[in-house]
Amino acid sequence: MMDGFDWLRGLILDIDGVISRGRKPLPEAIEAYKMLKEAGIKIVFVSNNSTRSRRIMMGRFREFGMEVGEEELIIATHATAVYISRERKNARVYTTGEEGLKEELRNEGLRIVDYRDAEYLVVGSNRGINFQIFTEALRLCLNEEVRYVAVNPDRVFPAEDGPIPGTGLVIGALYWMTGREPDVIIGKPSRIIMDQAIERLGLRREEVGIVGDQIEVDVLAGKNAGIKTFLVLSGVTNKDNYEERVKRSGVEPDFVFSDLYELAHSVLASK
Amino acid sequence: MMDGFDWLRGLILDIDGVISRGRKPLPEAIEAYKMLKEAGIKIVFVSNNSTRSRRIMMGRFREFGMEVGEEELIIATHATAVYISRERKNARVYTTGEEGLKEELRNEGLRIVDYRDAEYLVVGSNRGINFQIFTEALRLCLNEEVRYVAVNPDRVFPAEDGPIPGTGLVIGALYWMTGREPDVIIGKPSRIIMDQAIERLGLRREEVGIVGDQIEVDVLAGKNAGIKTFLVLSGVTNKDNYEERVKRSGVEPDFVFSDLYELAHSVLASK
Repeated sequence: MMDGFDWLRGLILDIDGVISRGRKPLPEAIEAYKMLKEAGIKIVFVSNNSTRSRRIMMGRFREFGMEVGEEELIIATHATAVYISRERKNARVYTTGEEGLKEELRNEGLRIVDYRDAEYLVVGSNRGINFQIFTEALRLCLNEEVRYVAVNPDRVFPAEDGPIPGTGLVIGALYWMTGREPDVIIGKPSRIIMDQAIERLGLRREEVGIVGDQIEVDVLAGKNAGIKTFLVLSGVTNKDNYEERVKRSGVEPDFVFSDLYELAHSVLASK
Repeated sequence: MMDGFDWLRGLILDIDGVISRGRKPLPEAIEAYKMLKEAGIKIVFVSNNSTRSRRIMMGRFREFGMEVGEEELIIATHATAVYISRERKNARVYTTGEEGLKEELRNEGLRIVDYRDAEYLVVGSNRGINFQIFTEALRLCLNEEVRYVAVNPDRVFPAEDGPIPGTGLVIGALYWMTGREPDVIIGKPSRIIMDQAIERLGLRREEVGIVGDQIEVDVLAGKNAGIKTFLVLSGVTNKDNYEERVKRSGVEPDFVFSDLYELAHSVLASK
């Protein structure tokens, strides 16, 4: 931690485990976010969430007492829509996902169609998943002409009352039934969502860092995108499991802080 | 095919692709079944179906115009119930499966319980599968003290309007989310269901053959159980794909017939 942070002009912030824990905001982290912004550090939040639109996430930030503009948020649902629409304008897509994902796909001009007409299979998590959705996704997956995009690769999500399935529920089922994995994954640790975030910041890679609480998601995403990586110990990774997780993943963050507040103080003191 | 069939005293018959195609009976095959029985060959039907009880399957046989007793049918739902109840009498089980499976589990004295109280996770296909069932199965799968039993390993089922998910939908999702595969698989090609069928016939292995239409299911099941294997080309495997399927699977049947009728004639002529 002896390094100065003169190089740092922008930060990509994870949300859960950094700014909040589930629905509970971390007040010191929110204070730190404001300090960093006031000091001229550009900020973009990046979330792997595959069920919510930006509009829904904005409401969550307001509940936290934060003023965050849509331009400060890259969410995997939106990043997926942007990615597909750049690849094929007005493409016909079928999705296993929820209304929040459909809203983002439609906003980018993509057409949600019957599975028999789809050019893209977009896999996202869905709390209303059912046998018919699996059947339709299976049939698309068996068609090699259909391009298969996953919103994120998250296997299990730690909900308040215990683990619940992530998008991996659908990815795993399709893999087991067909042998096929997604052609493209958008969310962290993929560099696709990271590249959109860096583009949004309008900075060069050497001026940017990512802050997150998960080594195999956030730190790996930073490495994949060629930017500096900050791990905070306020979420999934903590002082007790840090060593073991670094060892298991074979990935080490450039900087480690107990939380965003300590990070902000350190960054601003060195400026 | 020069061999005589003097050794043959019992046959294990697959249903779909042998006796019927979906809901359509194959009249010559049903005739052949009657001929074999009249000639004193003992018969047990074995089905990997994970959603139906024996009671439901009996109705299907009656629709085909066949008189089949419950003692002539080993269905994977029932075989699962027998297996678990022999392992732990009155065990507490949670299942992802349908009412037909639950009926068989209850008939063997097993108790269907809330997932938090379960000693066994029983995975079967379910056309009413939903996010809650996946969540509960996920949590059980993460608990290494819970024994995980799959009714069959079937990945995809060829329905009349196209492929639909098999039990592999759930097995694959759980595998991807937790890294865990079933501790035990009951249905073909597992020898567990085969051993129950041979036990039911009351014959020695060298007196028994299996007849089926799928190399990687029926023929492999026969090899695993150490009995003779008959492939019929009236279902999934046909004259056109036979060579390629033998090559791909690395498994070769002992005898090949175009259908059960040709098989019955050949067997009875040699006696």
